Amino acid sequence: MPLPTIEWEGDINGRIRLIDQTLLPTELKFVYCEDLKSIWHAIKTLMVRGAPAIGIAGAMGVVLGIKEIQVKDADTFLKELKHVTTYLGSSRPTAVNLFWGLARMERVAQENKNKSVQEIKEALLQEALKIQNEDKVICRQIGENGADFIKDGSGILTHCNAGGLATADYGTALAVLFKAKEQGKHIKVYADETRPLLQGSRLTAWELMHAGIDVTLICDNMAAHVMKLRKVQCVIVGADRIAANGDTANKIGTYSVSIMAKEHGIPFYVAAPVSTFDLSIKSGNDIPIEERSPEEVTHGFGKRTAPEGVNVFNPAFDVTPAKNITAIITEKGVIKHPSIENIQRLLGKHIHRTT
Amino acid sequence: MPLPTIEWEGDINGRIRLIDQTLLPTELKFVYCEDLKSIWHAIKTLMVRGAPAIGIAGAMGVVLGIKEIQVKDADTFLKELKHVTTYLGSSRPTAVNLFWGLARMERVAQENKNKSVQEIKEALLQEALKIQNEDKVICRQIGENGADFIKDGSGILTHCNAGGLATADYGTALAVLFKAKEQGKHIKVYADETRPLLQGSRLTAWELMHAGIDVTLICDNMAAHVMKLRKVQCVIVGADRIAANGDTANKIGTYSVSIMAKEHGIPFYVAAPVSTFDLSIKSGNDIPIEERSPEEVTHGFGKRTAPEGVNVFNPAFDVTPAKNITAIITEKGVIKHPSIENIQRLLGKHIHRTT
Repeated sequence: MPLPTIEWEGDINGRIRLIDQTLLPTELKFVYCEDLKSIWHAIKTLMVRGAPAIGIAGAMGVVLGIKEIQVKDADTFLKELKHVTTYLGSSRPTAVNLFWGLARMERVAQENKNKSVQEIKEALLQEALKIQNEDKVICRQIGENGADFIKDGSGILTHCNAGGLATADYGTALAVLFKAKEQGKHIKVYADETRPLLQGSRLTAWELMHAGIDVTLICDNMAAHVMKLRKVQCVIVGADRIAANGDTANKIGTYSVSIMAKEHGIPFYVAAPVSTFDLSIKSGNDIPIEERSPEEVTHGFGKRTAPEGVNVFNPAFDVTPAKNITAIITEKGVIKHPSIENIQRLLGKHIHRTT
Repeated sequence: MPLPTIEWEGDINGRIRLIDQTLLPTELKFVYCEDLKSIWHAIKTLMVRGAPAIGIAGAMGVVLGIKEIQVKDADTFLKELKHVTTYLGSSRPTAVNLFWGLARMERVAQENKNKSVQEIKEALLQEALKIQNEDKVICRQIGENGADFIKDGSGILTHCNAGGLATADYGTALAVLFKAKEQGKHIKVYADETRPLLQGSRLTAWELMHAGIDVTLICDNMAAHVMKLRKVQCVIVGADRIAANGDTANKIGTYSVSIMAKEHGIPFYVAAPVSTFDLSIKSGNDIPIEERSPEEVTHGFGKRTAPEGVNVFNPAFDVTPAKNITAIITEKGVIKHPSIENIQRLLGKHIHRTT
């Protein structure tokens, strides 16, 4: 139902088609990347963004890169491949999923090094498609597992963009809403605009409208009033990192929303793949919070809207304590009342396969 | 300490000097209104804004208007005066304080109708200055009454602009901070930017910087995180209307802040003149909430940042229940634990003088 964020078109000599997210929501434009340089540029300039989507873009980028390697010998091919992955890695050096995707591609090449170059190339294309497909399956499963929490006729609040644009096509928090819609439920979504970068108004509102879901945009500071008016019956958000005890780092403002939900007796759900859990982190106190440029706040929309020289505090994330979370919805199942024990119970079975 | 929002310069033939608030914070420009038309335009285009400031602008505008009435006879003068007040009233037909200011001016003219035109004109100038001065005294007294709540070395969060720019010079919530600063206290203020119209970043941050107060700008959705980091020890905000039971309507987002403050055990103060109480309103449920144009949210900064045709909910105010308010600070005293009884106890003595 959602529009595909990134797709491979054709065979081993094909190309990548992606939505240029920098132009949303005013323009929906598909960009076609035919060579290595163009996908590098697309990743660099945030035409494609969101952790899983970047991983897929990197893997598909490798396939574009190897089109240009015209050697017959596998050893030479593998050396050339290394140049391709190093180059792609330089597009967004802090994106963990990019390196994860590139490493998977290198591993597959190694595993096939006794085959012909043509066969290795084929294996690499298949791996890129597999990475994309795995992400789709995970997102669909999160949608399945979460949709039961969405009642017909209910209102749902979401914050930031945990949608298809950040993944292969279906998202995490929004996957639950897409699935509920597919089940024929009538839902009404309230999307926080999500200052400073407005992912809610630019991306979430756009995605939901394209999926035919009734969406109403609000400013972040209106959410409590919306809850008081009983316009929403639950909150659902994504996650950037989840600690071993269930404390969840997500886009700044998520913590506020969790407090308001608690105050109004509204369930608060987190939807995220199992890979979001970082069991090396004991609790939310140990999650580092990135602080970003003051200009995001003072020049939000190109135009200065704050006094020159004003101090700005611009944390990109905050941490919602596990006690504020009704349940964490993953592709492997739902963790109600998240705690070390409840998380271990679900992850114990799956953690080795997913990290 | 704050810059004067609006001043009368000279005698009965003088002029109004005001800060053009539409240019803040990028430009501090004083505008001089020499005639009726120019002050009408200044009110109309929001160069001067904020309920008390508009009341003062209207009253001073009357003095500009009567400069042009060249009659000798008091009766004719009063008729001409009516044209002046009617014209000024058309600049912002929904601004209650504007009509309140104009009515006071008309009353003074009536009371002096047996005097010479020159004497009536003098009385009108004096009344305009009196309205301005009363507002200054009220704001200073709110500052005095509230400053004890501000501890040396503490952090304070404020929302929207309850500052000097909305009043004669000192504000309500910000009056408390200006006074604390005058008392030599070191304070650090966090200003919510206050979407959609950014009064926090455009006006509050600017005013506090000009007063030499340490201010840090944040987005509205960062306030809970700031509280969790123990960066603020109290919250202080203004009020648009206070019901008989203490429920307080103020800029959208104030209710959220009150919930977050409660969650973090941080006192939440409202600073407002006694005239803000509307005892005809029993509780917050009966306060009508104005909904404003979707464009404020979708085109916040001149540029479209949301999909065309998206639904928008844009309430301008919300209601903070009395139970979330630690105290209401007025010019007549402080109402701790606001309730019908506690409010009546303070207002009983003063309400007739102030309404």
